[in-house]
Amino acid sequence: MSEPAFDSPQDAEDAFYEAFEAHDIQALMAVWDDADDVAAVLPSGHLLAGREAIAKTWGEMFEGAQRPDITVHHRQWLESGDLALHLVEEALRFGPGAQSPPPMAALNVYRRTATGWRLVLHQAAPPVPPGLVPGAPPA
Amino acid sequence: MSEPAFDSPQDAEDAFYEAFEAHDIQALMAVWDDADDVAAVLPSGHLLAGREAIAKTWGEMFEGAQRPDITVHHRQWLESGDLALHLVEEALRFGPGAQSPPPMAALNVYRRTATGWRLVLHQAAPPVPPGLVPGAPPA
Repeated sequence: MSEPAFDSPQDAEDAFYEAFEAHDIQALMAVWDDADDVAAVLPSGHLLAGREAIAKTWGEMFEGAQRPDITVHHRQWLESGDLALHLVEEALRFGPGAQSPPPMAALNVYRRTATGWRLVLHQAAPPVPPGLVPGAPPA
Repeated sequence: MSEPAFDSPQDAEDAFYEAFEAHDIQALMAVWDDADDVAAVLPSGHLLAGREAIAKTWGEMFEGAQRPDITVHHRQWLESGDLALHLVEEALRFGPGAQSPPPMAALNVYRRTATGWRLVLHQAAPPVPPGLVPGAPPA
């Protein structure tokens, strides 16, 4: 399969969330870098190290759940050299009539490679429970 | 107060976790960059944007809780230009006889500034519940 080349971190991010919405594991893995040091931290706290773990867990997640609409709100860009970091808030909605759960903070880290910008790290926070005091230790 | 200058991201990280263990909010804030774009995502999912929010919430956390022993296990370094990212696992222990909760994945992002390397982003995942299936959507 010939892979798409992303000219900017934003192009890679757009493709990432499109693949997420479409539950398209091949398109999702085309955004992840081919290197060994890719990693994802799930809202559950689990750390997935390497492409194989990411592809397996995300693939299983895509098979089961309903396809969400994802709206991404920008919070912070950090760029230097061959790295670009984007701190966002992800708002997911499952179905037109469904209630939206609280947004999740997530960080995406992109790296400039020989084949364009690719995702190297994704860390999503758990949804914020309403009324929880910021800074309180987790229950 | 004259601030310490950190010659490397590792120096900044050592100072960060020492301040965390000591519950020393002044030492902690000396590691954070003075810029407006600093941010922290707590294990609860809350996003703290800016130094003021970070100082307030962390200060309150330090006043209440018991001082932990923190052991940091390296998982991944990413460096390019003026940015350095360290993906770690934090193991906290409260008191000599206390049971250790499961480790937490955390990401620290450092930036090279005119006053040395400073922390710009900290995102900690919640502790992993034992037996939870990786990839399962959060409850």
